[in-house]
Amino acid sequence: MKNIDHLSIIDSTFNVDYSNGVIKGKNVNKAKKYLKDLPNIFRHGDAFSKMDGDALIYEVQAILPVDEGIEGGLFYGKTIIHPGKVGDEYYMTKGHFHQKIDRAEFYWGIEGTGMLLLMDQKRNTWGEKMYPGSLHYIDGFIAHRTVNIGDTPLSFGACWPSDAGHNYQEIMDNGFSGRLIEVDGKPKLIAN
Amino acid sequence: MKNIDHLSIIDSTFNVDYSNGVIKGKNVNKAKKYLKDLPNIFRHGDAFSKMDGDALIYEVQAILPVDEGIEGGLFYGKTIIHPGKVGDEYYMTKGHFHQKIDRAEFYWGIEGTGMLLLMDQKRNTWGEKMYPGSLHYIDGFIAHRTVNIGDTPLSFGACWPSDAGHNYQEIMDNGFSGRLIEVDGKPKLIAN
Repeated sequence: MKNIDHLSIIDSTFNVDYSNGVIKGKNVNKAKKYLKDLPNIFRHGDAFSKMDGDALIYEVQAILPVDEGIEGGLFYGKTIIHPGKVGDEYYMTKGHFHQKIDRAEFYWGIEGTGMLLLMDQKRNTWGEKMYPGSLHYIDGFIAHRTVNIGDTPLSFGACWPSDAGHNYQEIMDNGFSGRLIEVDGKPKLIAN
Repeated sequence: MKNIDHLSIIDSTFNVDYSNGVIKGKNVNKAKKYLKDLPNIFRHGDAFSKMDGDALIYEVQAILPVDEGIEGGLFYGKTIIHPGKVGDEYYMTKGHFHQKIDRAEFYWGIEGTGMLLLMDQKRNTWGEKMYPGSLHYIDGFIAHRTVNIGDTPLSFGACWPSDAGHNYQEIMDNGFSGRLIEVDGKPKLIAN
């Protein structure tokens, strides 16, 4: 932590502009995921290949005040998933277990409506509804993916340990055991 | 974590009612701190002893999904500090280092205006402004206390590791090396 003069008063090290959701401050990482960055996660390969690969699916801002892997630190993030579907399947994130698999995470819904898909190591998958004010404890050993089921952007916050890391490979190789599709205008969680 | 049926959809395990700030869900701990619970933290003992000991100073709601002390889990909380002063010193929390002192914490301002007082182990104290949207990374090894400097309740959220613990004793014994008092209607951080 940088040295601060004794008895000085400073602005908060970070802040969120609620009018546009932008996080300001040092070491705020920003990433955008386009459709072309998400091959093989949607079930309708035909629909996927006909769509614009440059369609923006989700955006992540993450505050990383310490190096990844440090024990005892925390990271903080905000994700926006744009509304849309590939075939009948809603836009969603890649999803991951934590690399240090016992590490937990909190998510909280800010805007829009969505679903937090959770999968345990026995490959049971379930969904928790996300909405402004929803608050989700993601226990260790649980893979997590978020899905926008509405017509407007889904945004949510997150806080996780700096030594959690991300294991995306397990989900890239084996997926989740459930998929969230739209049936008669409503989300339905079906077996993969 | 409780067993959830495969392919089931459930409500979020917790939620925050933004109209009144109440967190709902299992294992939400609630605590209230009255003036009489905070002896010896304000500098004006005379003013303190003339005030109503049953005045509500601050309220904490905390989600503790795992046992305190478990490594890898997280806790989530929301604190409201009511407006007021003891003499010229603003209402504030007790303040603490973490028991496992290298553990970090995030705070974020929700309503009202305040100051996050931070003190390192060399007893340098400084303040970070709190306001709706302010976001604060409290590094390990840094004591933290919050102060309401406004005329309305200050509320803020927090996320911290489940093995951090609280060391209140160090602050009870030695205090912070700075105090936030009102001078000409404005907050000023003075040496203790």
